[in-house]
Amino acid sequence: MAEEKPAVTEEKPAAKEKPAVTEEKPAAKEKPAAENVVFIGIKPVMNYVLAVITQFNMGSGDVILKARGKAISRTVDVAEITRNRFLQGLIVKNILIGTEEVQGERGATNVSTIEIVLGRGK
Amino acid sequence: MAEEKPAVTEEKPAAKEKPAVTEEKPAAKEKPAAENVVFIGIKPVMNYVLAVITQFNMGSGDVILKARGKAISRTVDVAEITRNRFLQGLIVKNILIGTEEVQGERGATNVSTIEIVLGRGK
Repeated sequence: MAEEKPAVTEEKPAAKEKPAVTEEKPAAKEKPAAENVVFIGIKPVMNYVLAVITQFNMGSGDVILKARGKAISRTVDVAEITRNRFLQGLIVKNILIGTEEVQGERGATNVSTIEIVLGRGK
Repeated sequence: MAEEKPAVTEEKPAAKEKPAVTEEKPAAKEKPAAENVVFIGIKPVMNYVLAVITQFNMGSGDVILKARGKAISRTVDVAEITRNRFLQGLIVKNILIGTEEVQGERGATNVSTIEIVLGRGK
Protein backbone atom coordinates (compact mmCIF):
# COMPACT_ATOMS: atom_id res chain seq x y z
CA MET A 1 0.00 0.00 0.00
CA ALA A 2 2.79 2.35 0.81
CA GLU A 3 4.19 2.00 -2.69
CA GLU A 4 1.00 3.17 -4.33
CA LYS A 5 1.68 6.82 -3.75
CA PRO A 6 0.30 8.72 -6.75
CA ALA A 7 2.85 10.09 -9.16
CA VAL A 8 1.59 13.61 -8.76
CA THR A 9 2.98 14.13 -5.31
CA GLU A 10 6.08 16.06 -6.09
CA GLU A 11 7.19 18.31 -8.87
CA LYS A 12 10.71 18.83 -7.77
CA PRO A 13 13.33 20.72 -9.70
CA ALA A 14 15.07 18.24 -11.95
CA ALA A 15 18.36 18.63 -10.14
CA LYS A 16 17.04 16.79 -7.14
CA GLU A 17 16.18 13.73 -9.13
CA LYS A 18 19.78 12.92 -9.95
CA PRO A 19 21.32 10.19 -7.84
CA ALA A 20 23.15 11.68 -4.93
CA VAL A 21 26.61 10.60 -6.01
CA THR A 22 27.76 13.90 -7.46
CA GLU A 23 27.64 16.87 -5.16
CA GLU A 24 28.49 19.82 -7.31
CA LYS A 25 26.40 22.30 -5.39
CA PRO A 26 26.75 23.11 -1.73
CA ALA A 27 24.42 20.61 -0.16
CA ALA A 28 23.27 22.92 2.57
CA LYS A 29 21.21 25.16 0.32
CA GLU A 30 18.48 22.81 -0.77
CA LYS A 31 17.79 19.66 1.08
CA PRO A 32 15.61 17.03 -0.59
CA ALA A 33 11.91 17.57 -0.21
CA ALA A 34 10.54 15.92 2.87
CA GLU A 35 8.04 13.12 2.56
CA ASN A 36 5.18 15.27 3.71
CA VAL A 37 5.55 18.07 1.17
CA VAL A 38 3.21 18.31 -1.80
CA PHE A 39 4.29 20.68 -4.55
CA ILE A 40 1.32 22.18 -6.33
CA GLY A 41 1.73 22.75 -10.06
CA ILE A 42 -0.48 22.90 -13.10
CA LYS A 43 -2.28 19.58 -12.83
CA PRO A 44 -5.96 19.34 -11.93
CA VAL A 45 -6.75 20.22 -8.33
CA MET A 46 -8.04 16.78 -7.45
CA ASN A 47 -4.69 15.18 -8.26
CA TYR A 48 -3.14 17.19 -5.46
CA VAL A 49 -6.05 16.63 -3.10
CA LEU A 50 -5.50 12.90 -3.56
CA ALA A 51 -1.79 13.33 -2.90
CA VAL A 52 -2.52 15.16 0.36
CA ILE A 53 -5.03 12.55 1.50
CA THR A 54 -2.51 9.83 0.70
CA GLN A 55 0.14 11.56 2.79
CA PHE A 56 -2.17 11.70 5.78
CA ASN A 57 -3.21 8.09 5.29
CA MET A 58 0.45 7.09 5.28
CA GLY A 59 0.71 8.53 8.75
CA SER A 60 1.98 12.05 8.24
CA GLY A 61 1.02 14.34 11.08
CA ASP A 62 1.34 17.48 9.02
CA VAL A 63 1.35 17.96 5.28
CA ILE A 64 2.90 21.05 3.70
CA LEU A 65 1.57 22.39 0.41
CA LYS A 66 4.05 24.47 -1.53
CA ALA A 67 3.58 26.47 -4.70
CA ARG A 68 4.67 29.57 -6.49
CA GLY A 69 3.27 31.96 -9.03
CA LYS A 70 -0.13 31.25 -10.47
CA ALA A 71 -0.33 27.89 -8.73
CA ILE A 72 -0.87 29.72 -5.44
CA SER A 73 -4.60 29.99 -6.08
CA ARG A 74 -4.78 26.28 -6.77
CA THR A 75 -2.92 25.59 -3.55
CA VAL A 76 -5.63 27.31 -1.54
CA ASP A 77 -8.20 25.27 -3.47
CA VAL A 78 -6.37 22.05 -2.56
CA ALA A 79 -6.28 22.96 1.12
CA GLU A 80 -9.93 23.98 1.21
CA ILE A 81 -11.25 21.00 -0.75
CA THR A 82 -9.23 18.56 1.31
CA ARG A 83 -10.43 19.84 4.64
CA ASN A 84 -14.01 20.67 3.66
CA ARG A 85 -14.82 17.62 1.63
CA PHE A 86 -12.50 14.79 2.61
CA LEU A 87 -10.67 15.18 5.92
CA GLN A 88 -12.92 17.29 8.10
CA GLY A 89 -10.63 17.14 11.11
CA LEU A 90 -7.85 19.03 9.36
CA ILE A 91 -6.85 22.52 10.40
CA VAL A 92 -4.69 25.10 8.70
CA LYS A 93 -1.76 25.28 11.08
CA ASN A 94 0.26 27.94 9.35
CA ILE A 95 0.49 29.89 6.11
CA LEU A 96 3.69 31.52 4.92
CA ILE A 97 4.20 33.70 1.90
CA GLY A 98 7.48 34.74 0.37
CA THR A 99 9.39 35.70 -2.74
CA GLU A 100 11.86 33.67 -4.77
CA GLU A 101 14.10 34.74 -7.59
CA VAL A 102 13.84 32.59 -10.68
CA GLN A 103 15.98 32.72 -13.81
CA GLY A 104 13.77 33.44 -16.77
CA GLU A 105 14.61 34.14 -20.38
CA ARG A 106 15.00 37.84 -19.71
CA GLY A 107 17.10 37.52 -16.58
CA ALA A 108 16.01 37.04 -13.01
CA THR A 109 12.43 37.72 -12.03
CA ASN A 110 10.72 37.49 -8.70
CA VAL A 111 7.93 35.07 -8.08
CA SER A 112 5.69 34.79 -5.03
CA THR A 113 5.55 31.60 -3.01
CA ILE A 114 3.18 30.09 -0.51
CA GLU A 115 3.40 27.32 2.05
CA ILE A 116 0.27 26.01 3.72
CA VAL A 117 0.72 23.62 6.63
CA LEU A 118 -2.23 21.29 7.17
CA GLY A 119 -2.46 19.21 10.30
CA ARG A 120 -4.89 17.16 12.28
CA GLY A 121 -6.81 19.11 14.88
CA LYS A 122 -6.73 18.19 18.52
CA MET B 1 -4.52 64.69 -0.15
CA ALA B 2 -6.87 62.33 1.56
CA GLU B 3 -9.31 62.60 -1.32
CA GLU B 4 -6.80 61.36 -3.85
CA LYS B 5 -7.30 57.74 -3.04
CA PRO B 6 -6.91 55.77 -6.30
CA ALA B 7 -10.07 54.35 -7.77
CA VAL B 8 -8.73 50.83 -7.67
CA THR B 9 -9.06 50.39 -3.97
CA GLU B 10 -12.22 48.42 -3.79
CA GLU B 11 -14.05 46.09 -6.09
CA LYS B 12 -17.10 45.60 -4.03
CA PRO B 13 -20.10 43.60 -5.09
CA ALA B 14 -22.41 45.96 -6.93
CA ALA B 15 -25.06 45.70 -4.25
CA LYS B 16 -22.97 47.71 -1.87
CA GLU B 17 -22.70 50.63 -4.24
CA LYS B 18 -26.39 51.41 -4.12
CA PRO B 19 -27.36 54.23 -1.79
CA ALA B 20 -28.28 52.83 1.56
CA VAL B 21 -31.93 53.88 1.43
CA THR B 22 -33.40 50.54 0.43
CA GLU B 23 -32.62 47.63 2.67
CA GLU B 24 -33.99 44.64 0.92
CA LYS B 25 -31.47 42.19 2.25
CA PRO B 26 -30.79 41.47 5.89
CA ALA B 27 -28.13 44.00 6.70
CA ALA B 28 -26.29 41.77 9.11
CA LYS B 29 -24.85 39.49 6.45
CA GLU B 30 -22.52 41.85 4.67
CA LYS B 31 -21.43 45.04 6.27
CA PRO B 32 -19.77 47.71 4.13
CA ALA B 33 -16.09 47.17 3.53
CA ALA B 34 -13.93 48.92 6.07
CA GLU B 35 -11.63 51.69 4.98
CA ASN B 36 -8.54 49.57 5.31
CA VAL B 37 -9.62 46.70 3.07
CA VAL B 38 -8.29 46.37 -0.46
CA PHE B 39 -10.11 43.92 -2.69
CA ILE B 40 -7.81 42.36 -5.24
CA GLY B 41 -9.32 41.69 -8.65
CA ILE B 42 -8.09 41.45 -12.20
CA LYS B 43 -6.32 44.77 -12.58
CA PRO B 44 -2.54 45.01 -12.81
CA VAL B 45 -0.71 44.24 -9.60
CA MET B 46 0.78 47.70 -9.25
CA ASN B 47 -2.67 49.29 -9.05
CA TYR B 48 -3.30 47.36 -5.88
CA VAL B 49 0.17 47.98 -4.51
CA LEU B 50 -0.50 51.69 -4.88
CA ALA B 51 -3.85 51.30 -3.13
CA VAL B 52 -2.17 49.56 -0.19
CA ILE B 53 0.55 52.20 0.08
CA THR B 54 -2.11 54.90 -0.01
CA GLN B 55 -4.01 53.24 2.83
CA PHE B 56 -0.93 53.17 5.02
CA ASN B 57 -0.09 56.76 4.12
CA MET B 58 -3.58 57.79 5.17
CA GLY B 59 -2.79 56.44 8.60
CA SER B 60 -4.14 52.89 8.58
CA GLY B 61 -2.37 50.70 11.08
CA ASP B 62 -3.27 47.49 9.29
CA VAL B 63 -4.40 46.91 5.73
CA ILE B 64 -6.33 43.79 4.78
CA LEU B 65 -6.02 42.34 1.29
CA LYS B 66 -8.97 40.22 0.22
CA ALA B 67 -9.46 38.14 -2.88
CA ARG B 68 -11.01 35.00 -4.19
CA GLY B 69 -10.42 32.52 -6.95
CA LYS B 70 -7.61 33.18 -9.36
CA ALA B 71 -6.93 36.60 -7.86
CA ILE B 72 -5.42 34.85 -4.82
CA SER B 73 -2.04 34.54 -6.54
CA ARG B 74 -2.09 38.24 -7.36
CA THR B 75 -2.91 39.02 -3.75
CA VAL B 76 0.28 37.35 -2.58
CA ASP B 77 2.15 39.32 -5.25
CA VAL B 78 0.66 42.57 -3.93
CA ALA B 79 1.68 41.77 -0.36
CA GLU B 80 5.18 40.74 -1.32
CA ILE B 81 5.86 43.64 -3.68
CA THR B 82 4.53 46.16 -1.18
CA ARG B 83 6.67 44.98 1.67
CA ASN B 84 9.79 44.09 -0.29
CA ARG B 85 9.95 47.09 -2.56
CA PHE B 86 8.00 49.96 -1.01
CA LEU B 87 7.26 49.66 2.70
CA GLN B 88 10.06 47.60 4.16
CA GLY B 89 8.77 47.84 7.71
CA LEU B 90 5.60 45.91 6.92
CA ILE B 91 4.98 42.47 8.30
CA VAL B 92 2.43 39.84 7.42
CA LYS B 93 0.33 39.75 10.56
CA ASN B 94 -2.10 37.06 9.56
CA ILE B 95 -3.27 35.01 6.61
CA LEU B 96 -6.67 33.37 6.48
CA ILE B 97 -8.06 31.09 3.80
CA GLY B 98 -11.64 30.02 3.36
CA THR B 99 -14.38 29.00 0.98
CA GLU B 100 -17.36 30.97 -0.28
CA GLU B 101 -20.35 29.83 -2.27
CA VAL B 102 -21.02 31.90 -5.36
CA GLN B 103 -23.99 31.71 -7.70
CA GLY B 104 -22.76 30.91 -11.16
CA GLU B 105 -24.62 30.12 -14.33
CA ARG B 106 -24.78 26.46 -13.48
CA GLY B 107 -25.88 26.88 -9.88
CA ALA B 108 -23.77 27.42 -6.80
CA THR B 109 -20.06 26.74 -6.92
CA ASN B 110 -17.43 27.05 -4.26
CA VAL B 111 -14.58 29.48 -4.57
CA SER B 112 -11.54 29.82 -2.34
CA THR B 113 -10.82 33.07 -0.55
CA ILE B 114 -7.80 34.63 1.10
CA GLU B 115 -7.26 37.48 3.54
CA ILE B 116 -3.79 38.81 4.16
CA VAL B 117 -3.36 41.29 7.00
CA LEU B 118 -0.39 43.62 6.55
CA GLY B 119 0.74 45.80 9.42
CA ARG B 120 3.64 47.89 10.54
CA GLY B 121 6.26 46.00 12.51
CA LYS B 122 7.15 47.01 16.02
